Amino acid sequence: MSIRIGIAGYGNLGRGVECAVRQNPDMELKAVFTRRDPASVSILTEGVPVYPMDKAAEMENEIDVLILCGGSATDLPVQTPAMAAHFNVVDSFDTHARIPEHFDAVNQAAKASGKVAVISAGWDPGMFSLNRLYANAILPDGKDYTFWGKGVSQGHSDAIRRIEGVQDARQYTIPVEAAVEAVRAGKNPELSTREKHTRLCYVVAKEGADKARIENEIKTMPNYFSDYDTTVHFISQEELDRDHKGLPHGGCVIRSGKTGWNGEHHHVVEYSLKLDSNPEFTSSVIVACARAAARMQQEGQTGCKTMFDIPPAYLSPKSGEELRRTLL
Amino acid sequence: MSIRIGIAGYGNLGRGVECAVRQNPDMELKAVFTRRDPASVSILTEGVPVYPMDKAAEMENEIDVLILCGGSATDLPVQTPAMAAHFNVVDSFDTHARIPEHFDAVNQAAKASGKVAVISAGWDPGMFSLNRLYANAILPDGKDYTFWGKGVSQGHSDAIRRIEGVQDARQYTIPVEAAVEAVRAGKNPELSTREKHTRLCYVVAKEGADKARIENEIKTMPNYFSDYDTTVHFISQEELDRDHKGLPHGGCVIRSGKTGWNGEHHHVVEYSLKLDSNPEFTSSVIVACARAAARMQQEGQTGCKTMFDIPPAYLSPKSGEELRRTLL
Repeated sequence: MSIRIGIAGYGNLGRGVECAVRQNPDMELKAVFTRRDPASVSILTEGVPVYPMDKAAEMENEIDVLILCGGSATDLPVQTPAMAAHFNVVDSFDTHARIPEHFDAVNQAAKASGKVAVISAGWDPGMFSLNRLYANAILPDGKDYTFWGKGVSQGHSDAIRRIEGVQDARQYTIPVEAAVEAVRAGKNPELSTREKHTRLCYVVAKEGADKARIENEIKTMPNYFSDYDTTVHFISQEELDRDHKGLPHGGCVIRSGKTGWNGEHHHVVEYSLKLDSNPEFTSSVIVACARAAARMQQEGQTGCKTMFDIPPAYLSPKSGEELRRTLL
Repeated sequence: MSIRIGIAGYGNLGRGVECAVRQNPDMELKAVFTRRDPASVSILTEGVPVYPMDKAAEMENEIDVLILCGGSATDLPVQTPAMAAHFNVVDSFDTHARIPEHFDAVNQAAKASGKVAVISAGWDPGMFSLNRLYANAILPDGKDYTFWGKGVSQGHSDAIRRIEGVQDARQYTIPVEAAVEAVRAGKNPELSTREKHTRLCYVVAKEGADKARIENEIKTMPNYFSDYDTTVHFISQEELDRDHKGLPHGGCVIRSGKTGWNGEHHHVVEYSLKLDSNPEFTSSVIVACARAAARMQQEGQTGCKTMFDIPPAYLSPKSGEELRRTLL
């Protein structure tokens, strides 16, 4: 019997979930929920209905896991606890600093409803977090490094677009190769923010805008750019649309640590991702977590979970016997 | 209250476990068991007793997890089920093809005794297997690659030592860099055994031995060398002892896969290890699994488990709350 999936929110992430569900024969898309006019939303899967978001709860008996594809700033803090009252849910809440309070709110709702809610699924938080956890458990005497990119940061691109005179923009985060190599070589460097990443911006200026002022406003923007070596290129809208339309991302998590009676042996553990599409990879992780959520709830578990709590086998459609035979 | 650890078998792996226990403040080494004369075994930790292996069962109330450090060929198939009748146990059984039967035998013993037995802990099987599982669950449409090395293969070194006229030998398995790069670039190559790894042998010949014959016997040895490009260097015992005494190893697991409605986006997931000491890294994984075994049994679980079944958080000494706050 297939796992019946609902999607709440149909942007890049929702569409990615739709594609990932299609790649998993044990899953079936039952409905998409949207805050827009459903008639205006055209999805890829034939025969699957699009409903208003506020009708979701009416389908609680027809959906095994509802996947929440809203944003972390304002959508998920409200939606995830609300929907966990009716469904097993998975979200990709990614505001690291607010995970503890989000966990508590969702846990309360999911405990009360007897559902399982997996939060912060994706790659960071998600697979990167898992790899930090594994490597820390294995090498207690060590140091963690995370590098992001090369990839598009949508938050930074948005920040540039808010500057007066900017028509459009795309920002790439790029790890400093020399820093990554020093870490990989086990040198355990102390790295400042500036030494770890650079920022590369492609900006379309409105006609007549002062490019020197725009460039200066970008480079001095606190939090977003002022702590980084930032490069700004002005290009045309056509160039931006042609060359910078994708949402690639990636990065690596490295732990460098010691073992032995006197710390005489050194080890480097690295997990790295090169992703053509950040939202589609995130969606693919989310969908694997949806499978785990359904199973955990069937076994009688309830409450909020993260990938830290999911036995890895639960993410796979294969049986324990098959996994041991083929992948162990 | 600390987790009380016993070590059964005191070779490279047992000594590695001893070192790893010392790095984990929530653990305490209670005893080492050996098949040798205990008086002949000198361990690193002061004040910890060494007992004959057949006395282990008498300490079942003083040890929370017994770590089995014997070999996979003949020791563990007997020891792990036998000890699982008395203890929570962890082993590093690494004969991939025989894992299903080992699992069944250990599962029966551990179910009967109400203990938890984790088998095949380490890096391959172990962390490499886990990364194959995660990447397969996330990217169902993809291809797996595993490369080993550069590192010492003890099985291959032993095989060379069995050749007439050979006094000592060390064999390194080396991944073919061009193959690794093609996989990392997402080219999904079909690779033969020869195209993936080369073998590099350092051999000490006995006085007067026919080196040409030895080299030929190595290069044509079925299973071990005949399918590989193999290089043989003859060196002195002094050089071998000076330059090739360590047991470094490592490698990488890569999955290359597609997402999107028409498979239009490509992703590469890689997990890689660079290890100064293969037995100490393996031991460090085992010790983290011992923590998980103790917890799972305390929660009422029983039977045989692999790393596929362990919620990652159970490997860490940190609470769920602390893990979410610091590593998610």
